[in-house]
Amino acid sequence: MKNILVIGAGRSASSLIKYLLDHSTEEKWQVTVADVSLDLVKLKTKDHPNSRAIAFDINNDQQREEEISYADLVISMLPASMHMNVANDCVKFKKHLATASYVSKEMAALDKEAKEAGIILMNEIGLDPGIDHASAMKIIDEIHEAGGELTSFKSYCGGLVSPESNDNPWGYKFSWNPRNVILAGQGTAQYIEKGQYKYIPYNRLFTQTDTIEIEGHGKFDAYANRDSLSYRHFYDIDKIPTMLRGTLRMPGYCKAWNVFIKLGLTDDSYKIEASETLTYPQLLEAFLPEGKQSTKEKLVAFMGNEMDAEVMSKIEWLGLFENTKIGIADASPAQILQHLLEEKWKLQEHDKDMIVMQHQFKYISADKKDKTILSSLVVKGEDQIYTAMAKTVGLPLAITAKLILQNKIDARGVTIPTTKEIYLPLLRELESFGVKFEEKMF
Amino acid sequence: MKNILVIGAGRSASSLIKYLLDHSTEEKWQVTVADVSLDLVKLKTKDHPNSRAIAFDINNDQQREEEISYADLVISMLPASMHMNVANDCVKFKKHLATASYVSKEMAALDKEAKEAGIILMNEIGLDPGIDHASAMKIIDEIHEAGGELTSFKSYCGGLVSPESNDNPWGYKFSWNPRNVILAGQGTAQYIEKGQYKYIPYNRLFTQTDTIEIEGHGKFDAYANRDSLSYRHFYDIDKIPTMLRGTLRMPGYCKAWNVFIKLGLTDDSYKIEASETLTYPQLLEAFLPEGKQSTKEKLVAFMGNEMDAEVMSKIEWLGLFENTKIGIADASPAQILQHLLEEKWKLQEHDKDMIVMQHQFKYISADKKDKTILSSLVVKGEDQIYTAMAKTVGLPLAITAKLILQNKIDARGVTIPTTKEIYLPLLRELESFGVKFEEKMF
Repeated sequence: MKNILVIGAGRSASSLIKYLLDHSTEEKWQVTVADVSLDLVKLKTKDHPNSRAIAFDINNDQQREEEISYADLVISMLPASMHMNVANDCVKFKKHLATASYVSKEMAALDKEAKEAGIILMNEIGLDPGIDHASAMKIIDEIHEAGGELTSFKSYCGGLVSPESNDNPWGYKFSWNPRNVILAGQGTAQYIEKGQYKYIPYNRLFTQTDTIEIEGHGKFDAYANRDSLSYRHFYDIDKIPTMLRGTLRMPGYCKAWNVFIKLGLTDDSYKIEASETLTYPQLLEAFLPEGKQSTKEKLVAFMGNEMDAEVMSKIEWLGLFENTKIGIADASPAQILQHLLEEKWKLQEHDKDMIVMQHQFKYISADKKDKTILSSLVVKGEDQIYTAMAKTVGLPLAITAKLILQNKIDARGVTIPTTKEIYLPLLRELESFGVKFEEKMF
Repeated sequence: MKNILVIGAGRSASSLIKYLLDHSTEEKWQVTVADVSLDLVKLKTKDHPNSRAIAFDINNDQQREEEISYADLVISMLPASMHMNVANDCVKFKKHLATASYVSKEMAALDKEAKEAGIILMNEIGLDPGIDHASAMKIIDEIHEAGGELTSFKSYCGGLVSPESNDNPWGYKFSWNPRNVILAGQGTAQYIEKGQYKYIPYNRLFTQTDTIEIEGHGKFDAYANRDSLSYRHFYDIDKIPTMLRGTLRMPGYCKAWNVFIKLGLTDDSYKIEASETLTYPQLLEAFLPEGKQSTKEKLVAFMGNEMDAEVMSKIEWLGLFENTKIGIADASPAQILQHLLEEKWKLQEHDKDMIVMQHQFKYISADKKDKTILSSLVVKGEDQIYTAMAKTVGLPLAITAKLILQNKIDARGVTIPTTKEIYLPLLRELESFGVKFEEKMF
């Protein structure tokens, strides 16, 4: 028997735990699932004979060390900032680790020790980062191996609601961490286009959007992600003239979201005084210039030609002009907005979410022709537990855990899935779960 | 003899050191001036017989403790973040301390220990914070003592260039820390107007400005400071319906500065790749949307009706359309902008700077009449050493040091100048240096 320890049984862990248990008998695994909430764990392990459900406190050093020393491989579904205690223990007890989070500076610093311990610290092995790396590198390697020269790579991903469950004017419901959706894009988007560096500050990020079309699925808004430049290095395409990564939303979302940015409602850096006593219109008034009109009229005047009937219908649908009390104390504007949206954008029991990803490659082939490859992925969820998000985050983690335990991965130290030994078997097995890219070349 | 230790001999310390030395014989003071640069110290002490010039390293614990234990009172002109080693030593050796910086959390935490040691840790005793506290509290106390009810308090301050030295279209030159001017207003301005909380995010702070007029000195732009709300507590006017603090600039400055904010050029959170190889127009191109026009035409289109001939003349005067290389490596947008402006907005040898402050009070008098008091201060510098800034920051520190050493201040612990025992003698002596508020009541 090999022992797998999964830390965290939250919404992205459902498909991961299901895969591990489904394969546990064949692979001879015991799967320990650990979370602060034992009830949550039991909901996911369903008393499977190869499962072990435990209540777990990540800050309890003794328990953490005991569980990690007992495991052969650890999967951390903790928030990114909480991985390091686990990673340090993995090095200490020589246990493999997999996470779906970006490699932090602290994680990167463990590379040498991890190699000396003979273990792999596999990161960025979820959806984005994760499937995006694997699927992009596969095509980049293919182009280079055929003697082509990559001139442009644009990559877009969005966690959205499936059309059949899309019953609100925003075309959006939360299938992952709501806070990240509220704060999305803060900072400055950095990319390169035809050799010209491009910087878009947050205050105009949602006005400078592109439109992306995916055959059979229609059009989407795309806004630029914060850092596209660093990916040139990870993908070993440092000299590429065009490199952009972006996030997808349903058409019209970005124009309406810009109202919140311009008002200042996505700011998380200070508390609104007496927030619990205010109504939503009073909150809007606090951000609108002085005037004698109604709150709605003031907002229209404030937005000028950035306001239209579609934008207004989205704002009105949220109830921002109704005299409802905010009802939470000591809250930042972003926390108030999140509080409202978590209620309005809740994924209902039978709702299906949808993951959309598209890579756009332009290159000059060995015979000097301009070529384009579009590689697109659309995954729909089953329900609000086995979401497309849980599937696309959890399955790459689970499959990679299997590959590591089967000794099919030679890499050691801090790793991301950009090499063939990982991405080829990973993408192959993902296809059997319907996570399959459609490629078009022209 | 009493010993005064001045740490820091930079641009704001000139008038402070001069005052201390001018009074040293009469008051029986020995004045030690300590700075990393001994040359800088000697420039300011000019071998005065009661002066002692030393080269000083704030991180040399032994030297710092020795000098502080030898002093009766310490004046720290260090950057705000560097006061704490000094403050801790002052508590340890029971020596009084004065600084012109805001009370930090760490400083506030020393209150009890300082009281037990029988010393005063006097902070916020420069211009702003400093003279603003003293002059505002004087009038607030007078209104309350006459049975009046304060309904509105707005207070504005600006460190500007004097009209006779104003020879550039911005009407601005640096008389203090350039970095603070570049980053001014980042965050969200918070104030209250007629009982309605008001929040202005940075992205529109320089478009929502007021115009302030000071008799005999014309009009000024005013933008709201980051935090006006906390001052209600310091001034003991927690229930006041209107409270706003703002910063003054010459008319037209704010509209032009908004170009930099909208572009993203005041961002200090990331580095521009290959900044040393770029020209200024190439930098602008990196922040402007795609297009086939010239950089200047693109900027005009980008700003829309926020651009006019006056704004353009300011931008052009900075040379942003000339093919000059930026010439500094690994720089953030804000660092690049600072690099350019430090050259263009340098205070020249015979230039005079100017401090402008205005308090606007509205209140209901004891006989139920609506009243207004305007209290205005204008101070001009002598040259680029004895600037109005050095005078208005340094003299309150020096005068307060004298009052403390003469045992005329009873307060102990962490203090700011909002009480009569400090503000009355302080404002009185400042008048003899021409730092005098003109009051108008109507």
